Amino acid sequence: MSSGTSTRSLHADDVLNLVSDVAPPMHVATTFRYPNDPAALVPAADIANSGTPDPTSHIYSRLSAPNPTRFETILSSLCAGQTIAYSSGLSALHAALTLLNPRHISVGEGYHGCHGVIALFTRTTGLKKLPLDCAASALQKGDVILLETPVNPKGTAFDIAHFAEKAHARGAVLIVDSTFAPPGLQQPFDFGADVVMHSGTKYFGGHSDLLSGVLVTRNREWYEQLYKDRVFLGSVMGNMESWLGVRSLRTLEVRVQRQSANASNLVSWLHTALHTPNPSPDSVEAAVQSVLEEVYHASIQQTEGDWLKKQMPNGFGPVFSITMKTERAARYLPSKLHFFQHATSLGVVGLENWEDLKSDLVGAFRELAKESKE
Amino acid sequence: MSSGTSTRSLHADDVLNLVSDVAPPMHVATTFRYPNDPAALVPAADIANSGTPDPTSHIYSRLSAPNPTRFETILSSLCAGQTIAYSSGLSALHAALTLLNPRHISVGEGYHGCHGVIALFTRTTGLKKLPLDCAASALQKGDVILLETPVNPKGTAFDIAHFAEKAHARGAVLIVDSTFAPPGLQQPFDFGADVVMHSGTKYFGGHSDLLSGVLVTRNREWYEQLYKDRVFLGSVMGNMESWLGVRSLRTLEVRVQRQSANASNLVSWLHTALHTPNPSPDSVEAAVQSVLEEVYHASIQQTEGDWLKKQMPNGFGPVFSITMKTERAARYLPSKLHFFQHATSLGVVGLENWEDLKSDLVGAFRELAKESKE
Amino acid sequence: MSSGTSTRSLHADDVLNLVSDVAPPMHVATTFRYPNDPAALVPAADIANSGTPDPTSHIYSRLSAPNPTRFETILSSLCAGQTIAYSSGLSALHAALTLLNPRHISVGEGYHGCHGVIALFTRTTGLKKLPLDCAASALQKGDVILLETPVNPKGTAFDIAHFAEKAHARGAVLIVDSTFAPPGLQQPFDFGADVVMHSGTKYFGGHSDLLSGVLVTRNREWYEQLYKDRVFLGSVMGNMESWLGVRSLRTLEVRVQRQSANASNLVSWLHTALHTPNPSPDSVEAAVQSVLEEVYHASIQQTEGDWLKKQMPNGFGPVFSITMKTERAARYLPSKLHFFQHATSLGVVGLENWEDLKSDLVGAFRELAKESKE
Amino acid sequence: MSSGTSTRSLHADDVLNLVSDVAPPMHVATTFRYPNDPAALVPAADIANSGTPDPTSHIYSRLSAPNPTRFETILSSLCAGQTIAYSSGLSALHAALTLLNPRHISVGEGYHGCHGVIALFTRTTGLKKLPLDCAASALQKGDVILLETPVNPKGTAFDIAHFAEKAHARGAVLIVDSTFAPPGLQQPFDFGADVVMHSGTKYFGGHSDLLSGVLVTRNREWYEQLYKDRVFLGSVMGNMESWLGVRSLRTLEVRVQRQSANASNLVSWLHTALHTPNPSPDSVEAAVQSVLEEVYHASIQQTEGDWLKKQMPNGFGPVFSITMKTERAARYLPSKLHFFQHATSLGVVGLENWEDLKSDLVGAFRELAKESKE
Repeated sequence: MSSGTSTRSLHADDVLNLVSDVAPPMHVATTFRYPNDPAALVPAADIANSGTPDPTSHIYSRLSAPNPTRFETILSSLCAGQTIAYSSGLSALHAALTLLNPRHISVGEGYHGCHGVIALFTRTTGLKKLPLDCAASALQKGDVILLETPVNPKGTAFDIAHFAEKAHARGAVLIVDSTFAPPGLQQPFDFGADVVMHSGTKYFGGHSDLLSGVLVTRNREWYEQLYKDRVFLGSVMGNMESWLGVRSLRTLEVRVQRQSANASNLVSWLHTALHTPNPSPDSVEAAVQSVLEEVYHASIQQTEGDWLKKQMPNGFGPVFSITMKTERAARYLPSKLHFFQHATSLGVVGLENWEDLKSDLVGAFRELAKESKE
Repeated sequence: MSSGTSTRSLHADDVLNLVSDVAPPMHVATTFRYPNDPAALVPAADIANSGTPDPTSHIYSRLSAPNPTRFETILSSLCAGQTIAYSSGLSALHAALTLLNPRHISVGEGYHGCHGVIALFTRTTGLKKLPLDCAASALQKGDVILLETPVNPKGTAFDIAHFAEKAHARGAVLIVDSTFAPPGLQQPFDFGADVVMHSGTKYFGGHSDLLSGVLVTRNREWYEQLYKDRVFLGSVMGNMESWLGVRSLRTLEVRVQRQSANASNLVSWLHTALHTPNPSPDSVEAAVQSVLEEVYHASIQQTEGDWLKKQMPNGFGPVFSITMKTERAARYLPSKLHFFQHATSLGVVGLENWEDLKSDLVGAFRELAKESKE
Repeated sequence: MSSGTSTRSLHADDVLNLVSDVAPPMHVATTFRYPNDPAALVPAADIANSGTPDPTSHIYSRLSAPNPTRFETILSSLCAGQTIAYSSGLSALHAALTLLNPRHISVGEGYHGCHGVIALFTRTTGLKKLPLDCAASALQKGDVILLETPVNPKGTAFDIAHFAEKAHARGAVLIVDSTFAPPGLQQPFDFGADVVMHSGTKYFGGHSDLLSGVLVTRNREWYEQLYKDRVFLGSVMGNMESWLGVRSLRTLEVRVQRQSANASNLVSWLHTALHTPNPSPDSVEAAVQSVLEEVYHASIQQTEGDWLKKQMPNGFGPVFSITMKTERAARYLPSKLHFFQHATSLGVVGLENWEDLKSDLVGAFRELAKESKE
Repeated sequence: MSSGTSTRSLHADDVLNLVSDVAPPMHVATTFRYPNDPAALVPAADIANSGTPDPTSHIYSRLSAPNPTRFETILSSLCAGQTIAYSSGLSALHAALTLLNPRHISVGEGYHGCHGVIALFTRTTGLKKLPLDCAASALQKGDVILLETPVNPKGTAFDIAHFAEKAHARGAVLIVDSTFAPPGLQQPFDFGADVVMHSGTKYFGGHSDLLSGVLVTRNREWYEQLYKDRVFLGSVMGNMESWLGVRSLRTLEVRVQRQSANASNLVSWLHTALHTPNPSPDSVEAAVQSVLEEVYHASIQQTEGDWLKKQMPNGFGPVFSITMKTERAARYLPSKLHFFQHATSLGVVGLENWEDLKSDLVGAFRELAKESKE
């Protein structure tokens, strides 16, 4: 389909409509009736071994169900690969490790949850962890590089093509965790990713009201095995979560465009303010400089070559990160903000009018600056 | 709490009420605000390492969330052990295997899904399967006996105490899959179970509209590790599933009492009809005898000793099983029934007035008997 | 259909199944696609004027929608008349008044909300209120008697046949509010009711989590007009409310049987305790007598003739009422109870094991008795 | 609050947060517990007569409930007046008529549903209908002008200030149905509206999955009476509808901006194509001209004076309308479109990338043009 991102968000699942409802029903059934015609009955084993499900026909919701299938169908179009959804981002990673069962995994700092999954897998299988910048020679056939880019929490980026080359030279597999750059911002397959992973809890869900994780691959055999494995891992996405997920994808492009623009505007303002020479004492710039240590974001990242603009041509991820000059300022900042939420996770904050977000930061910085003088 | 089953189903979660709503809200948030007071902030690592969650306070819904916690709290009372819930029965079994990481698992026929979980675990860890009646000497310290009773699909029972003794004599662990006999019908801990497992999709849910699985244990250390593992397995129960699960538990006792009585009535009728000597040609008994091969259910099971009545003193599980004289009759039976659903799974069928279920079977048997003569 | 109440609760809607889901989906669409075949298009006006909707085909959810239609379909079977559902019990009464547009309405004390509806209708139309025991001659053709039985909050009953005769002798219409006695307990049409009304919020919903109201009639013309009027009153039942309503009806019989038995057990115990002569000072009976003034319930109601047992042959409504000897005791009682909820509404409390409810009352009465002596 | 539209959509309800959930729970309770402290108990009558509810405290969900209250709170900020929500747009209109109880209502063509409400009200109260362009002298004190602008289905606009003047000169009340121009596009109070009405089913909901209607007023007395009346009209918004409504409002601005831009782009293209002189035979313009009769939209509306740009300074409503040259073309057009849905209602279509919508129309017009030649 050559349609735009929003058009696909709204119509890639049209083929799944069995009823005339303009908005899809929230299916909750765990169990689906067999055909009433005895001649049409198919042994369950045949279905289980058929590789992948018919997206319009279901037997038991641990195998497949209408809402998760709809969510996967839209994402298969948006992510440009076959998509399988899980109950959370970490259960998606767990499924990828179960599929690939590597002996080594090369991984950077990034999201701490992934390290928890790796530790659990190490406990049962003996998997060993290598640093992201390990020597290529440390990798063996079947090993995994897990690359998160943009990376949590900084929002800065890594060069996917570089890691793809490193992995493939050794017969290893590159998994890209692209959670911080949803479709429209970054397409990891174009740069050599073998498996793309998203915590759907973040931008896909976008409203802080659903947990999900997805794996995307263009390797048909892997996709079929992932589907079979999920039947027994049992880590399927909830019905309301997947129904809300579909509802969220309808607005993915307009949400991410606004969020990305807001982040770039804020980062640009903070970065400029931080580096304005000799600000007048009562100026916003002076307040920023008195409390803010550093700003991190792909939009102000220094890179060699032009890989970053090629990798994220339409704008950067909506997450950026700041460090404060003192621990006290870091600890007290959240309590002085009204529009920024002090909570774990991400992907929701950001549809506000960006000037209001700026004002919120300005107010908090001024308070902190004043307090630091007292 | 010494209250009755229904009273506990309705009130064991009263301690979790933070708002004045008489029926609990369906919480959907993935993320929960930190305290606004900077002094009250606790490092996330401290919380993650604290073993088990405060059931009235949440951080991120992959760790814990209000609805699944409420579901677990009620079940901890009903199942008489600490309960942890998962996205499905099989993800519960997968978590139990991840916790115990046994070298051998002794397991009978029973539910085929469990064998899929074992096969997947075998692929990554080298786990080996033994028959349920393996020699005790084949078991080593840390191994597992997985006993399903009553057993899928027959509805007949195994002697839990016997297998507890066998396991414990070797330092092995007894997991009882008590799905077919929910609280009120069977209490596996009283007979030596170490871990009790339920597919909550069946009687707990009871309306064919939610997937879930639970593990129950009285071993505090295991409970804490199961909780920590679930954070990284990520196989948490959906929000609507757990909200509906709580709603379902409110009626658990009245549902299971009716279902158990219905099953016993039907089995007794079928069993009597099948063994009525010389029925008159047009009688119901003649129709039954011409198509029905056998009926299976704990209520008509022959056992040595009185363990079965001790193990299930209040009635037997609502699932029974029949075999037909011909494959054709088996294949065509479902299409001739109106109240029985032809579908996988169980736990819902059965609140009908039992005379209507009997009439439904009589009609179908008569049709099949007539067709077999043609 | 001659099936039992539970069987009809579970299967009366089977005809509406368009998909193979064993549990019905929660439809949320406001809008339904027209046929794609241009030749099959029907002018909207023709549909709007066709009287009543095709229950398996929908256009716009203010007209009809799958979940409310399913709720109505089951209730049409259970209530033995054509049923139309509304957003609340009072919007149902408002719709009945809009249909009948009477000049006078004869009504007793009962539920205060109904008097609010009447007052609002009086404001716009000039409707006049008469007492329930008004002279028959005060009623004119087209006027309404609104009879609530059993009556809120006492739980005592009125003779439906008597009021039917009175109304019909004058060409007036008898509306019976049968909220306190759901299907299985009372069938008002058998005693002459013209319209039966239920607040579905109570026993139909049964879990304190949905608002609804229904009207039932056997007059086809009224039914069609009620349907047309609802399109413009716009007081349709919510999607989740109606989906939950269907889920609730699946267990209606087992819930109401338990609730009715619990109420009768409690009333019988309280009534006996209250009238036990010379109880010993520390006995439960003494505590009851020291704080309780009176108990009200149909099960202990004195009537002339046997109409009450004919009207409610299977047990009485689950609501009973008590008065306390002092205002203080009445005010403090709720704070001393753990299983009884202090809140408006009804229809949920009551699935507990009744001995626990008795213990709860005993504890509270003893505390109050002790306090009254201090 | 001087924050932007999106910021208010995201934060106007922050004051209602009783729990730490970042996304609000879906409250379903019909009933809320009274305070456990007997001294804190307030007679229900006092609460009922207190005019308006405390938005953070609830008694019974027909009076007020957390989700509808949250929906209303956000809309009170966005619509700049006190907002009360109903189960549908028409139940909102019905409530407005119940409040004002006019003897005459001056109303144009517009949405046919409103005429159904008026007819129903006429049946019970004798209300009389006047044309929108009636002589001002036909209006009496207390009468109503109901002005829909932009108007259904054309999408063209009326001058609000003109009708406000006309109404007020006679002591009549101006209700503006602003459904086709949600907040951000039009502020009717600025031009003299007394009551603003929206079918929340359209842009507020925006996903075709919820029914709702709202009234907004700056008259405190009317607001209090509307609240009291709704208690007895019982036409409250469903819980899931209001929860989804809040979720929808989070993205209102980005949705409406995209929809408005798409509509203007399409209208501009169609209008230009329709009036392109002498298009070449195979051109898009020729196809447009061979089947399309006319395009209607505020963006191409001819007006006297500059009221239209003042009334809608930020863009026009997303609904436009076309007429075809033949009935056959009109009847067959929907079956040739893939992205446009053939269904009643509106407010959802439109987030697609507009070039895809154009292509869809081009394809359909070419097919129709070809068929008309055959």
